[in-house]
Amino acid sequence: MRIGELSKRSGVPVPTIKYYLREGLLPAGVLTSPNQAHYDESHLRRLRLVRALIDVGELSISSVRDALSAIDASDESLHVKLGQVQEAISRAPSTPLDDESVREAEAFIAQYGPLEGYDIECSGVSRMLAAVLSAARSLGHDKFGENLGAYVEGMRIIAEADIEYVMRRATSVDDVVESMVVGTILGDAAMIAVRRLAHAQESAKRIGDSAARASAAREGER
Amino acid sequence: MRIGELSKRSGVPVPTIKYYLREGLLPAGVLTSPNQAHYDESHLRRLRLVRALIDVGELSISSVRDALSAIDASDESLHVKLGQVQEAISRAPSTPLDDESVREAEAFIAQYGPLEGYDIECSGVSRMLAAVLSAARSLGHDKFGENLGAYVEGMRIIAEADIEYVMRRATSVDDVVESMVVGTILGDAAMIAVRRLAHAQESAKRIGDSAARASAAREGER
Repeated sequence: MRIGELSKRSGVPVPTIKYYLREGLLPAGVLTSPNQAHYDESHLRRLRLVRALIDVGELSISSVRDALSAIDASDESLHVKLGQVQEAISRAPSTPLDDESVREAEAFIAQYGPLEGYDIECSGVSRMLAAVLSAARSLGHDKFGENLGAYVEGMRIIAEADIEYVMRRATSVDDVVESMVVGTILGDAAMIAVRRLAHAQESAKRIGDSAARASAAREGER
Repeated sequence: MRIGELSKRSGVPVPTIKYYLREGLLPAGVLTSPNQAHYDESHLRRLRLVRALIDVGELSISSVRDALSAIDASDESLHVKLGQVQEAISRAPSTPLDDESVREAEAFIAQYGPLEGYDIECSGVSRMLAAVLSAARSLGHDKFGENLGAYVEGMRIIAEADIEYVMRRATSVDDVVESMVVGTILGDAAMIAVRRLAHAQESAKRIGDSAARASAAREGER
């Protein structure tokens, strides 16, 4: 297909597609004349992946580029490749870090459990956690880290389902890695949305009108 | 304190503080002379909250403004107020939505369970989920929604701990709402970081080197 049809089928404007081509996020099409290139289904798929990473994952162009090179690299074991992809799509906030939070984050990861082949030193996870704990501390939430036990428990359930999903639908190594990127980015957004619902429900239970009424009734009984 | 000290203690440059003052994210100081204003601890605390929302939560200036007005509004019940704050800090990605995904997202929320006082029609959660499902569909992940059961299970554990944390440390309604904002934004980031660890561990277990060795050993036994 020509670039116009690629634009129509993906919903991405032609100038944006040209920008992605220049930035190396999309491989060049096959030239059919000096001024015209031909694109195929693989371009369409890659373009949709780029959009999902940018729109849903809110990744920067350079993070998208890192994620795509990890997907496209063929000389690593699958587990190592997944680690690289995860790293590429993890953003650490650029907040100032305090030493205590950095130590707390490292201790948390060290205690997390066996993480075979996982390079903590190079990992963005440690920076992400340290940034969260630093921001919490600066706001007077010194004990925020104590909450993380529930996060570990919740995430084990989710990660198990995620990897199961990726393994079930994948037919090739590239598929596994692409599914992992999609699942990670879309899963983060899904998780955040579902957490809002869970908060609304838990808040209704604990501090909603009926909770207030029940508490008033108990008061009345005294 | 003067603006210079506010800047020093918060780590936020003076021009940025002035910008927040102009944008209404920070209440004006008390004028001590025509050219000089005095700021107190409440300004410092609010400034740190604004930075956490922008740096860790990656909220836009206008979302920060919405979140702060929900915190500062005093005429609503706590449960309603929490709902408004949640809405202010929830961003729906601006991806095109397909009808099937919109229906799937609405059905998911309808089946989620009792959500007293929760206005689904007005909720960003439905848009967020629909955007995730639409992006997944466009990438050939039609069954992505089937994974959400594990997300519900995981999020119940986390939301329970979150609300417990907020209730335990709060001494006033304002405290509860501010803690909820902090906990939601920082919790989202913490959750994402912990999910990366859980993925690394699950991936090592299922597809790591030792898993490969175990599988090779089983092959050898045949």
